[in-house]
Amino acid sequence: MSVLIKNGHVIYGESFEVVKADVLIEGNRIVKVAKEINEPADTVIDAKGKVVSPGFINLHTHSPMGLFRGLADDLPLMDWLQNHIWPREAKLTREYTKAGAYLGALEMIKTGTTTFLDMYFFMDAVAEVVAESGLRGYLSYGMIDLGDPEKTEKEIKEALRTMEFIEKLNSERVHFVFGPHAPYTCSIALLKEVRKLANEHGKLITIHVSETMAEIGQITERYGKSPVVLLDEVGFLGNDVIIAHGVWLDSRDIQILARNGVTVAHNPASNMKLASGVMPLQRLLNAGVNVGLGTDGAASNNNLDMLDEMKLAALLHKVHNLDPTVADAKTVFRMATLNGAKALRLKAGVIKEGYLADIVIVDFNRPHLRPINNVISHLVYSASGNDVETTIVDGKILMLDREVLTLDEEKILDEAEKTIEKLA
Amino acid sequence: MSVLIKNGHVIYGESFEVVKADVLIEGNRIVKVAKEINEPADTVIDAKGKVVSPGFINLHTHSPMGLFRGLADDLPLMDWLQNHIWPREAKLTREYTKAGAYLGALEMIKTGTTTFLDMYFFMDAVAEVVAESGLRGYLSYGMIDLGDPEKTEKEIKEALRTMEFIEKLNSERVHFVFGPHAPYTCSIALLKEVRKLANEHGKLITIHVSETMAEIGQITERYGKSPVVLLDEVGFLGNDVIIAHGVWLDSRDIQILARNGVTVAHNPASNMKLASGVMPLQRLLNAGVNVGLGTDGAASNNNLDMLDEMKLAALLHKVHNLDPTVADAKTVFRMATLNGAKALRLKAGVIKEGYLADIVIVDFNRPHLRPINNVISHLVYSASGNDVETTIVDGKILMLDREVLTLDEEKILDEAEKTIEKLA
Ligand SMILES: [Zn+2]
Ligand SMILES: [Zn+2]
Repeated sequence: MSVLIKNGHVIYGESFEVVKADVLIEGNRIVKVAKEINEPADTVIDAKGKVVSPGFINLHTHSPMGLFRGLADDLPLMDWLQNHIWPREAKLTREYTKAGAYLGALEMIKTGTTTFLDMYFFMDAVAEVVAESGLRGYLSYGMIDLGDPEKTEKEIKEALRTMEFIEKLNSERVHFVFGPHAPYTCSIALLKEVRKLANEHGKLITIHVSETMAEIGQITERYGKSPVVLLDEVGFLGNDVIIAHGVWLDSRDIQILARNGVTVAHNPASNMKLASGVMPLQRLLNAGVNVGLGTDGAASNNNLDMLDEMKLAALLHKVHNLDPTVADAKTVFRMATLNGAKALRLKAGVIKEGYLADIVIVDFNRPHLRPINNVISHLVYSASGNDVETTIVDGKILMLDREVLTLDEEKILDEAEKTIEKLA
Repeated sequence: MSVLIKNGHVIYGESFEVVKADVLIEGNRIVKVAKEINEPADTVIDAKGKVVSPGFINLHTHSPMGLFRGLADDLPLMDWLQNHIWPREAKLTREYTKAGAYLGALEMIKTGTTTFLDMYFFMDAVAEVVAESGLRGYLSYGMIDLGDPEKTEKEIKEALRTMEFIEKLNSERVHFVFGPHAPYTCSIALLKEVRKLANEHGKLITIHVSETMAEIGQITERYGKSPVVLLDEVGFLGNDVIIAHGVWLDSRDIQILARNGVTVAHNPASNMKLASGVMPLQRLLNAGVNVGLGTDGAASNNNLDMLDEMKLAALLHKVHNLDPTVADAKTVFRMATLNGAKALRLKAGVIKEGYLADIVIVDFNRPHLRPINNVISHLVYSASGNDVETTIVDGKILMLDREVLTLDEEKILDEAEKTIEKLA
């Protein structure tokens, strides 16, 4: 299988230089980026007036939560969780979760996400959806033991079951990740066991850390130290760990994250909507911490649109620091692409020979993206996921001219509607 | 001319209740909202699975500035203005400005804005574009005299010339507004003359006020008082005044705005992108001040998407106050519709019998807007302007199924591209 993308504005290489060029994909790799490629290809796409961009990497989400979109907004976190989200999640079955995962996958393909790091339940069902959809998914079962040793064992078991299930799918696109939920919902025993297992199986770990002030208070009260110091002291941290949020970090925490090569997945929409706080982006970047971008679940966003998320990130840090030069367009674009790939140890997030063919084509023939004065700026500040026209993952076209080729859109929307009725 | 919109989820009345109903438009008014309207109509639109919403009212923009979109980002305000925007604006001609106004009008129609309050130069050209596009425009020539009496006279003259030009168009949709730029760029003499003329001609006034800390410093140094106190003392304020921004307001300022019935046009994207600061939304609303929503110009946003803007407003104030209950979806939706209409003394912003037929239809058959758990929430938190499918202003269909009927889209995009090349 080969795909040739002609005449686009290509965002090329690690420095995201915009060049007029053609892009040749063979198998699942980008093999050539040059002017006027005339080799034959199975599929030729004319990208004239369009932008050829690395696909977006959503570094933190809960993809099935689209089911709960808009069901509970404008509420304090605990009210939101305890009275709206958790009661519905308690009713979730494998089937319902799968309906949510389909909705999430469809939304991601339609808005230009090519890879995502997920945490939820029934992750075997989510894995099936990822395999079918053509997306690249890093999937973690969210473990919560609340200090109960019986629960610890059960959660580890479910994680390992999920791991085996995913390994059996034998897909280069579907990966298992360990996902202890958070330091305040997981025991030290669970965290240590996860560390051991991750080393043993060579898997990544993702975990929510330092999301709210309440969490900091709780962990400080329980352990007498910050969540990051705690995780460091029990030997949990490493360059295979991706922490979500990292909103409330002091200088010591940041040094620890930098020293351990930990990645932080920034979720501006969720942190803003739940009023969690503002992540210290500048201080993290200055310390050399790798920072990626995520949408969090659609119940606290309320979409999975990485283009939306880039704008929020860029704008939030400017106003928070009262400095318009921070979180510039390219920095944020890098967070949403290359930095995510780095965290996942994936040769992607960049359009360049030898990289994975995870590419989106964005239609710039729209008034809000013209004149084409600055491609990266337009993607960050002006575009939305709806402007993505074509989505390619692993060399395969998942969406062409807004039509999703791998999933049945109408059926998925109908099922989502029916499912939420059952969960009422 | 009559239009019948069938089977939609209609956002009805001042409380924005969502009902399944049909909407009948006759001439430029909504004449009936009810289940199963079967009267004949010139055009029948099937809105099944779609949302019928009041059109959005952009209460502060500079519509031709789309030309400069992305030309200068991530810069301090003064660097942005002095080295990037002003040099290009100095080269603007009537023709170039008109090309920008076409681009802005096209973008607004495509993203569901039905009415806008504008400030720029060559406003006669903008008025022609508004008349042709079918939009409802409130247009002000931006007056700047920098304390030079000769300039004062010249600016007043240009404003009056614009007013006459617009009156001659004799369109119910195109209105003249007085637009002194800001207290720091306009003399007291100019402001007083504007007040007098606005009374005389029964026109509204719009002005930038308290946008940046630098402005507060400058005005305090020059006059020994805040911009709002200054404007109050010279008798400038009134319920016909719409101030843009109002970022840096103290309690006294807020009381003055409330007492005078002044409207504030909130521009979250611009305030965030230029790092101007965060408007005290809660304090303004608590004081009873009417607050609308605007995008500001596309050079500091970088689009004119009111749906984007609603999300930014809702999220910004939650995180700024560390309170997720503030700026709830309905409050923000009201700012973007009814509050804007109030400020403009327009019987619009609401779908109800007797109101102007300024309506948009949003396609909810998209994964990021499903399940349809909460229509208002989805519009505020999940949708983007691209989801708007049909735009109706004054009873006339300007866009149907994404196709703009009043303007030549391709030509406008081409002209915008050519124009910015000439301004380089
Ligand atoms: Zn999360
Ligand atoms: Zn302005």
